[in-house]
Order: sequence, then structure tokens, then C-alpha cells
Amino acid sequence: MIGSTHFAVRATVLPTYGPWDGRKVEPHAVTNSAVGHDVKLASGIKRFFPILQWGRDYRADTFVNDGLAALIVTIMLIPQSLAYALLAGLPPQVGLYASILPLVAYAVFGTSRALAVGPVAVISLMTAAAAGNLAAQGSPEYLAIAILLALISGIMLLLMGVFRMGFVANFLSHPVISGFITASGILIAVSQLKHILGVQVSGHNLIEIGSSLLAKIDDTNLPTLIIGAVSTLFLFWVRGNLKPLFMKIGLSEKSANIASRIGPVIAVVVAISTVALLRLDTQGVAIVGRIPEGLPPLTVPDFDMGLWISLLGSSFVIALIGFVESVSVAQTLAAKKRQRIDPDQELVGLGAANVAAAFSGGYPVTGGFARSAVNFDAGAETPAAGALTAIGIALATLFLTPLLYFLPIATLAATIIVAVLSLVNIGDIREAWTYSKSDFAAMTATIAMTLLVGVEAGVFAGVILSIALFLYRSSRPHFAIVGQVRDTEHFRNVARHDVWTNPRLVSIRIDESLYFANARYLEDTIYDLALSSDTVEHVVLMCSAVNAIDLSALESLEAINDRLQSAGVLLHLSEVKGPVMDRLKRSHLLERLSGKVFQSQMDAIRGTTDTAHGTVLDYHL
Amino acid sequence: MIGSTHFAVRATVLPTYGPWDGRKVEPHAVTNSAVGHDVKLASGIKRFFPILQWGRDYRADTFVNDGLAALIVTIMLIPQSLAYALLAGLPPQVGLYASILPLVAYAVFGTSRALAVGPVAVISLMTAAAAGNLAAQGSPEYLAIAILLALISGIMLLLMGVFRMGFVANFLSHPVISGFITASGILIAVSQLKHILGVQVSGHNLIEIGSSLLAKIDDTNLPTLIIGAVSTLFLFWVRGNLKPLFMKIGLSEKSANIASRIGPVIAVVVAISTVALLRLDTQGVAIVGRIPEGLPPLTVPDFDMGLWISLLGSSFVIALIGFVESVSVAQTLAAKKRQRIDPDQELVGLGAANVAAAFSGGYPVTGGFARSAVNFDAGAETPAAGALTAIGIALATLFLTPLLYFLPIATLAATIIVAVLSLVNIGDIREAWTYSKSDFAAMTATIAMTLLVGVEAGVFAGVILSIALFLYRSSRPHFAIVGQVRDTEHFRNVARHDVWTNPRLVSIRIDESLYFANARYLEDTIYDLALSSDTVEHVVLMCSAVNAIDLSALESLEAINDRLQSAGVLLHLSEVKGPVMDRLKRSHLLERLSGKVFQSQMDAIRGTTDTAHGTVLDYHL
Repeated sequence: MIGSTHFAVRATVLPTYGPWDGRKVEPHAVTNSAVGHDVKLASGIKRFFPILQWGRDYRADTFVNDGLAALIVTIMLIPQSLAYALLAGLPPQVGLYASILPLVAYAVFGTSRALAVGPVAVISLMTAAAAGNLAAQGSPEYLAIAILLALISGIMLLLMGVFRMGFVANFLSHPVISGFITASGILIAVSQLKHILGVQVSGHNLIEIGSSLLAKIDDTNLPTLIIGAVSTLFLFWVRGNLKPLFMKIGLSEKSANIASRIGPVIAVVVAISTVALLRLDTQGVAIVGRIPEGLPPLTVPDFDMGLWISLLGSSFVIALIGFVESVSVAQTLAAKKRQRIDPDQELVGLGAANVAAAFSGGYPVTGGFARSAVNFDAGAETPAAGALTAIGIALATLFLTPLLYFLPIATLAATIIVAVLSLVNIGDIREAWTYSKSDFAAMTATIAMTLLVGVEAGVFAGVILSIALFLYRSSRPHFAIVGQVRDTEHFRNVARHDVWTNPRLVSIRIDESLYFANARYLEDTIYDLALSSDTVEHVVLMCSAVNAIDLSALESLEAINDRLQSAGVLLHLSEVKGPVMDRLKRSHLLERLSGKVFQSQMDAIRGTTDTAHGTVLDYHL
Repeated sequence: MIGSTHFAVRATVLPTYGPWDGRKVEPHAVTNSAVGHDVKLASGIKRFFPILQWGRDYRADTFVNDGLAALIVTIMLIPQSLAYALLAGLPPQVGLYASILPLVAYAVFGTSRALAVGPVAVISLMTAAAAGNLAAQGSPEYLAIAILLALISGIMLLLMGVFRMGFVANFLSHPVISGFITASGILIAVSQLKHILGVQVSGHNLIEIGSSLLAKIDDTNLPTLIIGAVSTLFLFWVRGNLKPLFMKIGLSEKSANIASRIGPVIAVVVAISTVALLRLDTQGVAIVGRIPEGLPPLTVPDFDMGLWISLLGSSFVIALIGFVESVSVAQTLAAKKRQRIDPDQELVGLGAANVAAAFSGGYPVTGGFARSAVNFDAGAETPAAGALTAIGIALATLFLTPLLYFLPIATLAATIIVAVLSLVNIGDIREAWTYSKSDFAAMTATIAMTLLVGVEAGVFAGVILSIALFLYRSSRPHFAIVGQVRDTEHFRNVARHDVWTNPRLVSIRIDESLYFANARYLEDTIYDLALSSDTVEHVVLMCSAVNAIDLSALESLEAINDRLQSAGVLLHLSEVKGPVMDRLKRSHLLERLSGKVFQSQMDAIRGTTDTAHGTVLDYHL
């Protein structure tokens, strides 16, 4: 008890001190993360413009740090942006455009200090899948659809943010996301093989792409294959060995982390010079070619209603997946500096970024893990780093694009393959199997559907299945007949422990909130137990694990009460929680209850065994 | 502790005695009501033929009781069957046919001793709605569809029974069922007004029927209106006053109950004689007319695939609603005699009854409350009573139908109106409002959709909404920051109680199982609490109300653990349940956990405050 007395002292010395500062008065403030956050972020206009927060105390040294981070991220982003545009089936400059205005928009509206938004692999794949269903790659319609996807998903994110609808993303369970990312990684890697081989291949799932690849395998272009293979091997080597190398030559882990990211840049530079010197483009090696110089054009998205409606589904999935990826990255980085992000405001930031992308010739963007990690390691302190990165990319599109003329597609494909294979996570599948079969089922369903049918089918199948399995499980809750552990006042499962029991009394502990899906199961169970022996006079329902009782369960309890009563059995409740009891007081159950409501299970035992006529006598047999 | 010592004695005297007889060895037996039931019902063939159970010890006096009950129910059923056939838009004899073979089938496969199956109001309405969408009332197609509905829903019930899929019905929450029944009652009453007025009216929802009625109001047939009004008033009077009257003249309550049921029979007899004497049929009073005599024909349902597919939805809803109504009636009556029913076997019994209906010219049937109550009060002891009732109805169709020639439709409509208005339950709506707004929302949505759109739309809307609301609620669970109640070892909500707190420690109690829908909310919440003050060194998650942790929640806990750790805060768990702990042991969380897992919250306080460097010292300020 020493610890507690200390508490007493502390509590009296500093009554309002502690993490729930000022919340005792308004406990509600902590029951909603967003509201809780307002306490810090201030409310009203400042909620929607976090820049007003960090902008106020922006200083020179902060600028220097942000600037350095921006420079590093810019260098890393140039090849990446081109590569992901390629993956999305879009012209390379679209990837660059998507890395300019969206970053500025996020800098204004985002709450994460280190998150770097822009094109990412999975979203690029989903864009390709959605646009590919409605138009041919390379056609102006295809580009228009990609832009429209950014606009619609951006608007959806904004609305979800303003109306605090972020919870919708919660229904993407971890097994579904993990399975989806893994399957996407495989799908992307396979889809890029065509660039390594230098053949034309189409399709949005493993079967289509695979069969198409096999059919075209003979058209393989040798120089392309060599470039692709060498780039891939080099990048794999870089991934594993460059960082340790830098550390050996004395760089700090952080600097080594950053330096090792230049691998792709090296690959790109070497590849460009090789192709340029040997004019391999004349040998059939596909190259990026001329990228229009200059800043992104102001694009006005297509407002064809029919098209909008046909894109709603895809846009919604892109918005959700992008949000989930972005938030988890942001939270991971924020926690490292004991900072917090506001998920609802993140929706606004991400939405603004996508709308910005739509009006500047870009396509759907989100917060990427790789770039954000670099940004963080490079010492970015505020979202301004993102804005500065945008300037860097803008300068690149103005002056660097001619240098990228000879960049071979195969090398870009190699950077994609090496990047996405790190998304494939077999360990998660194994973990799901050992931890929970239903999570495993949801995960494998998602993977299978994504690989064999397509990305959206995969997500939908996973979500539906995980909700269905959750409802099924909660409809058959675990329960235990409890008895009194000898010489204690604890009550445990009679099947697992050596306990005292009483033939006139059944004590049942239901380990689940009582609601419509398990109400009838509750009835069946209790009748089975109560009516299976003629000696039972009391049924005690131990409610320590019941967090809620909805109207259906209430009706069931009343029915159980009445039916047991007509069978000469009394129904009692024990250990009912405060909130649940508050609600029950508003119902007729307590008046109609044939038995009593006991504070503790022990009280219930005492109460029933003493009141139950005749029982006491029997005991003396 | 006196009570407990008694337990000890009892427990030692009769170790294997008590309701969990022989279950300690196989606790699994009680975790599934059906399995638990096998213990009594014996398994294998006997599960599917309960008749082998009660048939064995069937004796002469049982036969007498069953016979008497059968006679009474038969008399009551004749007008009722005709009325519900009328409601379903079918020829009167179809109602009689539906009251013969189905009863025999249920007698063989059903588990309830007193349940009386046959046509009921709500199912008749649903049949009319489903058939009316595809064919014109009175057409042979219409009848064929009604028969097909019985067959398909019968097969669905059988399959659900064999594969123990009864839980599907659990997703019809109480507010949805109650709202649906209320709305159906109103809809039926309104739809019968046309027979009271003697006009032609069509439509399947309030708007259609209402407007159609107003348009035809001028065609009202006076003699019909008089008969209808008088019958209705008489039946309302009977409902309220006949039973007390019988009791005043010395009948027991039970007999009075039964005798008061003859009201409709009196009304029918009087109405028939009036019409026959005054030949009111020549005045435009619609009468039943010639009902083909003889036993039900053997009908072979239509096997047109397209038709079957178009009826799947309606059949499924009819099957579920019928099952829910039937089971609740059966359970109520069974409990009165300390008997039990097997819900899964009830599916088989009800399915067999509907298939039997389909092959004998009937339409969908289920266990009705009114008739079952009469059957029970009249002393039915076994399902044989049902079989005997079937014989009674069969004799009626053979010899009584000519007597029903002059029976005015208006009187049948009156019996329906008086019967269904008792289904309208405004109290339930009020209760839902006071008890839970989300239950109220589900109920009103069901009522509105049923009245304004149709019966199936109503059921679907209700089910979807109640699932959505449940998921939403569980995605934002109630949680509390707990502190130590002074001078005790209890921990309660700091917002509600005067407790000891510690600035270095946050204890959070989440009152919900942790799963994908609330995993991210859990993360946000804990970051808000843990990172909102720089003094926090320990976060203790109190899991006393956590019944399950799925993979998504596990991932969130690991993320929380890692992120808090990188912010210099340790995460601890306390009061984790057995089943949950078993599962956590199969994960990496326990190895990676920065803090400890404590048996009790008190241990957690002692453990953390002693280990937390420096804290002890601070306390002495």
C-alpha cells in the first residue's frame, strides 16, 4: 500500500496535475481522440490550418534543417516519381507533377511533421487497374480518368475529414490490408517483368499478366533484358550492403541510412550514360524519351456525370487504402518525437493533396513510407520540408528532364520491382495462421481475390468476410459455468478449475456484450443449462464481461426471466457494470426480474442460498 | 462463507450432481446449445425424428387429451384458415389445405409439444406481396407462385436445420422484428378495409392501398359495409368481454380462455345464416361461394429455373420471419412445462411442414401464436395433437365446405382486422426510444420502409441498419481512465470517482473486445492520453472487459508498444482474461512488450511505481 499513500500525497500536492489535465471536469474530452486533440490544436479555423500552428514559431535553423531534408528527398523522388508513373501506365512527367502541388497542399493542411506525400506503388497500381478498365493506356481518356480518380478520392477524403468519418477506414482490418499489400507487391513485380524483358503485356491480374507474358516471351529484347537484370541485381545488392558499407567508412547510422537511398539514383545515372553512349535505344531498348519541360499545366478535370459515377467505387477504395497507409506512417514517425497527429485532419490534408494533384495534371497520391522515413532521418522538422521538396521537383521538371531522355524503362522497372518486393510479407500470413484462423481466412481471401481477380475485388472480399466472421463469432460468445474456487471468493469455470458447486444454483458468465446477434443463443444456452436438471432453483448471470445490452438482448433477458419463472426457477444478475446498469434502470427488466441484482458473485451465492427455501436445510444432509 | 461450506458438503455428497451433469469432462458440450441438447435428445436418427422419442411412451390418456385439444383447435382453425387464404389473395380452400399435411409433417419432425403450425397473418401478407409482384391475384400463376414460395422456403429451412445454420435468424434483431410485425399489422388491417367496404383495391404498401381505397370509396356496398362493421364490432367486444363473462358464470380461467376463442366461429355462423336467409349475395355482398370438396390435391410445384431464382429473396425472408415467430412461440410454451425445444430441429420441422404444404396445394406456413396457445391451454401433450387437428380439418374440407357457401368475405376480413390489430405494438416503439436510440432508429426505419415501400424492403433496411449501427458503436468503445479508489484496491473512472492518481502513470480500462473496427481508435486514444503530458512514464491497459483481441488489435497493441517505447513510455497490461492470454501467448506481443503483464490492476500500480526510477523519490515531496 506504500505506493498508494504516495499517490495520496502527490494527488493532494498537485491535484490537477497528470495526463488527464483539466479533463476531470470534462471527461468527454478524452472519449473522442479528435476532440481530445483540439485541446492542443485549438479549435475552429486552426483545426483546418495546422500551418497556423507551426508556422508561428518557424525559425531560421528550422528552415535550414527542412531545406537539407528537402534536397535529399528531391534527389530520391525524381526516379521514384517517374517509376510510379510508369507503373500507373501514365507519362513519366505525370509522376513529377504529382510530386509538386500535392506536397504544398499537404504542407498547409497536414498535421504530420515528417510525412512526405506523392505517388506510391500500391496506389499507382490501383490507378492503373481503375483507369485500365475504362480506357486504353496512353490514350488521353486514360490520363483524364487518372486525374479524375485523384479529384474524386480527394473530395471523398475532404468530406470524411470535415465530417470526422475517419472511422470508416477502421473496417479495413489488418489482415485485409496486409494481405492486400502483399498481393499488390507480387502483382506489381510480375507486371514490371514486361519492361525487364522489353515486351508488350496487358492485364490486371496474375492470370491475365502471366499468360500474356508467356505468350510474348519469345519477343524478349536482349539489351533490355541485360540492362533490366543488371539494374535489378545492383539495386538488390544496394539494399542489403550499401548501408553497412557507409557505416564501415565511418558514417553515422542515420547518414548511412540516407546515403544508401541514393542507390536508385546511381543506377539511373549509370543506365542513362550507358544507353546514351551505346545508343542502345536503336537496339530496341525502350527509353523515357522526351519529357515536356516546364511546370505542371493547370488541368480542369472531366465533369462527365456518368464517368464520375462509374469511378466512385474505385475512388473510394483508393481513398481508404491511401488514408490507411498514410496515417500509419504518420503515426509511427510522430510518436518518435512524442508528437501527435489528428487522423481526421490527416483526411483533410490528404484530400487537399489529391485535389491539388487533380488540378495540376497529377494522379492519386498519399503518404509513402520510404520517402517519409528519409525525410524524417534527414531531419525535416515541419511540413515546410514538403513545400521545399515541391520546389526541388519543380526545378527538376524545369531543367533536368532533358537529362532523363535516355533513361531506360527497364531500369525504372527494376527500381519498382526491388521496392515492391519489400511489401510482400509472408511472415504476416504465418502469424495470422498461428494467431487466429478467421483472421487467416480474411487475409488469404484478400490475397487470392487480389491476385486472381483484381485489386478492388480483393479489398471488397476481405472487408465483407472479416465483418461476417466477426459477427458470426460474436453471435456465439464464449461462456462458462462458474463455481467458487475452494476457500476463496473467486469464481472460475467449472470445466477448468476445482470449484464448489451447488445443484440448486447455476452461475453462468457470458464473455461478450449481449446484442441481437447473440440474444437468441443466450436464451437457448440458459434454457439448456437451467432446465436440464430438476434441482435448479436459481440461475445467476454473471455480467462482469458484459459491456452493453441492447434492446434485443434485453427482450431475451425478460423472456428468459419469465420462462424460467414459469418453470419455477429464479433469475439473478451479478457484477453488472455502471453504464449497463444505468441503461437497465430505464427498462422494465429490473421490476420484472424474479430474482435480485447482486453487487458481486459472492453476494449472489450468499443471497440465493439463504433465501432459497429449503436449501439451507438440505445442506445439512 | 456459510453458504460456501454448504456447497462443499453438497459437492462432496453428490459430486456429479447438478445441471452440468457429465459436462465437466466435456465442457465443450455446453458451449453449443444444439450439442448440449443431444445429451437429452440422443443423437443420430433420433435427432431428426423426435417422434421416436415421445412416440415410445404414448398412452391412451395422452391420446384423449391430444384429441380434445385437436377438436377445439380444428373449430378455431376453419374460419382462420379461410381468412388468411383470403389475406394471401388465394382461394379459401388453399388455407384449409395448408392446415392438413403441414401439421402431420411437423408432428413427425418438430420438437415442440404444443406448437400448432398453419397459415398465419404476417406470412400470408408476405406471400401476397411476393406473388403479387409476379402475377395477378386469382390467376393460376399466382397460386403456382404461392406454392413455390412454400417449397423454396421449406427447402431453405431444411438445409439451415441440417447444417445448424439457425444462427442466421439472429440477425433479425428484436427492434426489426417488432417494427416489422407492427407495420405488417397496420398494412394488413388497411388492406382488409376493401372487403369491409366491398370495393376492389390493389397495392402492397400504404400509399398504393390508401390512394386506391380513396378512389373507390364511392363504390361502397352498403349491405357489405353493415355486415363487415357489425362483425368487427362484435369481435372486438368478444375479445374484451367474453372471457370475463365465461369466468363470471363459473368457468376456470383456462376454459374461459378456450371458450372465448369461439367468438369468430359465432360471427361466422351468424353471418352465414343472415346472408343465406336474406340472400344478401344478390345485393352485391361478396361470399366465399363454392369451395371444392375433398382432400387436398397432390400438387407438383413449378420447376422453372428463372422463377425459382426470382423467388429466392422472398422465400428467404419468409423462411426467416416464419422461423423466428415459430421458435419464440415454441420456446414460450415449452418453458411453461420445463420442456425444451431444439431450434435447429425446429428448422427441420418447419421446413418439412412447408414442403408438405407445397405438395398438397397449400402455401407457406409457420407456428402461429394464437392457435398454439389454444392448443396448449386445451391440454395438448404431444405433437400428435397436431396430427389429429389435421384429420379434423381434412374432415371439414370433405363435408363442411358446402355450409360455408354463404360466408361473407366481409366477416372473414373482420376476423383478420381484429386479429392483426393485436400485433400493433406501440409500447415497443416507446420502449426502444427510452432504452436505446440506435435500436429506435432500426425499428422506425423498418416500420417506415415496410409501410411505404413493402415488407421485404422493410426487413432488409432494418437488418442492414442494425448491423451498421452495431459495428459503428463497437468501433468507438467506451473507455475510462481509472484511478485507485481511496483506501481500497478498487479502480474506477477518474471522471466519476474521487480516486488516487499518479502523474507518471495512466491506467486505461477499455470496455470492449479489441478488434479491427476499434483497433485504430484504440491507438489514437492511447497516444492522446499517453503523449498529452511529459510526465507519463507508464501506460497500463486494464483488460478486465476485453473478451477477445483479434489480429488487427494485436498489431495495434504492438504498434502502440513500439511507439510509446520510442517516446520513452512503457506499456503494461493488467487483468487479462484466460482465453485472451492463451491467444496472446501465441503472438510476439508478450516478448516485445516494453512493460509487464500484471495479474491485477493493484499489482500493476505497485509494480510500475516501484520500478519506475525516480518516482518513489518524488513521492516524498
